[in-house]
Amino acid sequence: MLPLALTMGDPAGVGGEITLKAWKALRSAASETSFFLIGDANHLKSCSRKSGISASIELIEEPADTKSVFPTALPVLHRPLGAPVVMGSPDPSNAQSVISSIETAVRFVKAGDAAAIVTNPIHKQSLYQAGFKFPGHTEYLASLAGISTPPVMMLASPSLRVVPVTVHVSLREALDSLTTDDIMTISLITAEALAKDFGIARPRLAIAGLNPHAGEGGAMGHEEASIIAPAIAQLAQQGIDATGPWPPDTMFHSAARASYDAAICMYHDQALIPIKTVDFDGAVNVTLGLPFVRTSPDHGTAFDIAGSGVANEASLLAAIALASQMANRRNA
Amino acid sequence: MLPLALTMGDPAGVGGEITLKAWKALRSAASETSFFLIGDANHLKSCSRKSGISASIELIEEPADTKSVFPTALPVLHRPLGAPVVMGSPDPSNAQSVISSIETAVRFVKAGDAAAIVTNPIHKQSLYQAGFKFPGHTEYLASLAGISTPPVMMLASPSLRVVPVTVHVSLREALDSLTTDDIMTISLITAEALAKDFGIARPRLAIAGLNPHAGEGGAMGHEEASIIAPAIAQLAQQGIDATGPWPPDTMFHSAARASYDAAICMYHDQALIPIKTVDFDGAVNVTLGLPFVRTSPDHGTAFDIAGSGVANEASLLAAIALASQMANRRNA
Repeated sequence: MLPLALTMGDPAGVGGEITLKAWKALRSAASETSFFLIGDANHLKSCSRKSGISASIELIEEPADTKSVFPTALPVLHRPLGAPVVMGSPDPSNAQSVISSIETAVRFVKAGDAAAIVTNPIHKQSLYQAGFKFPGHTEYLASLAGISTPPVMMLASPSLRVVPVTVHVSLREALDSLTTDDIMTISLITAEALAKDFGIARPRLAIAGLNPHAGEGGAMGHEEASIIAPAIAQLAQQGIDATGPWPPDTMFHSAARASYDAAICMYHDQALIPIKTVDFDGAVNVTLGLPFVRTSPDHGTAFDIAGSGVANEASLLAAIALASQMANRRNA
Repeated sequence: MLPLALTMGDPAGVGGEITLKAWKALRSAASETSFFLIGDANHLKSCSRKSGISASIELIEEPADTKSVFPTALPVLHRPLGAPVVMGSPDPSNAQSVISSIETAVRFVKAGDAAAIVTNPIHKQSLYQAGFKFPGHTEYLASLAGISTPPVMMLASPSLRVVPVTVHVSLREALDSLTTDDIMTISLITAEALAKDFGIARPRLAIAGLNPHAGEGGAMGHEEASIIAPAIAQLAQQGIDATGPWPPDTMFHSAARASYDAAICMYHDQALIPIKTVDFDGAVNVTLGLPFVRTSPDHGTAFDIAGSGVANEASLLAAIALASQMANRRNA
């Protein structure tokens, strides 16, 4: 099994700390999964000191060195930062290093030197200030991958997978931009990924309604009939097991969750409220539709606690475990 | 302690079954809480036979007879139905009996003969067909109570209380109709009820944002700044402990829930998704702002299973327990 490539994320955030903690956890468990970090080894050592996390760090020359180093030290492909780091204060002077870490990870995974990419949280505003032209991680990865269809965001936890059709737009814009085509495209990409990366031979998709009670026959909104139901009918014609539109409030309790493999949701919070309510620390962000596997923890840079040693590595560990499983299945 | 008045709900639904099961559960537990049903005793006996729930049923003349009867039989204030019942098939010929049961319950609670009202699920369409002029239970109760401000719907479970500001309208209409005034009014009614009926001296309200990430400083929607924040500021001026607008996806996990007594939500599913995900069977619908206590189970008539004996009485039992607690506090 190839190692995973971890990106550094914003150096002023919790990425360093949770990476150190994740390495210790995997080493203690004698896990078969290994990873290397693409980042500044000196900064990581500083994180280790500041946050009181004792961990050995060792520079490696190439991803292939990971396996031998991992049992005794966290392997780092050293890429020096452009400026000193003040924990909690993002600095555009380091934006190029942050971006370069992502670009390097993609190069390794495309070359077959890394099994998958796990990205630490970035701070978009600092990147924008330094001239970064992409809305976020996902679009940048799609560009590096050379694909034209936009990738799809899934949030996955042990008990629930959700995929929002509209994502980082206002609720009003979500209503205005929801289309049958997008529901179709995203459902197809999700079904394909569930089969290829999650080992589910015949994935079951639960398509959410948009309105209360899924519109209650048109009394509380028309989008179920005009936009969502046509997508479900087309998916069925293509042989996809897609059901709905389901009343959004009754599709996420434990018995309901057992009836599908992923919920296709119409807007950000319809997807994110249930998964973060059910599994706040363990949810993983997975990008579907890329030619390689990419996951990330489902939280941000957490500047308010960065450097204090209290950051929770659970989501990064879950992201590492899921990336490893997905890469194994894809390459099996 | 006065008995609770239970309304019959739609006789073709699960109301009869869950009432029988709830009586058995309370009797087994030797509960201090007692109730009487306002409905057709013969229909209830038929429910008992059909659904295989053995329960004694005894006619009473007035609410005061409840206490002596309850340990041995379910007390029924007999009100004959207008037409025979086919389980699962609502019949407008019985609408007047359904409505009359609600009206009678209100009369008893206003006269001081019942502690509170617990309503079984109704089927609105059958009532409309019979000329019922109110959108639902809540509006009818408000009219019987003689109040002009619309009552407020709270969903309450042991770990979460939610109050939607907009309720049974399409998501688009929820966006179009959301106002600072409504957020204010509903928050004030909620805070007052938490103090008076839930025994929380200084209630903490968490006010949800509307958009992903609560708008992220305007990048994903303006309603947090233009509509919600002004309401929070006004509430603070009135001495209410109201915080927010909170990002909707991170305010419902268990640690977050511990930081407030009720979440004020901007639309139906923002409130209903988290509570039904967390506690599908145990959530109770509570009407705030009425001059008497009224709760109801948080489910409908369930015509598809009515008469089969499989209906779950958990939500009705929770509604009975909460009504009893609220009435005790209000009368203490």
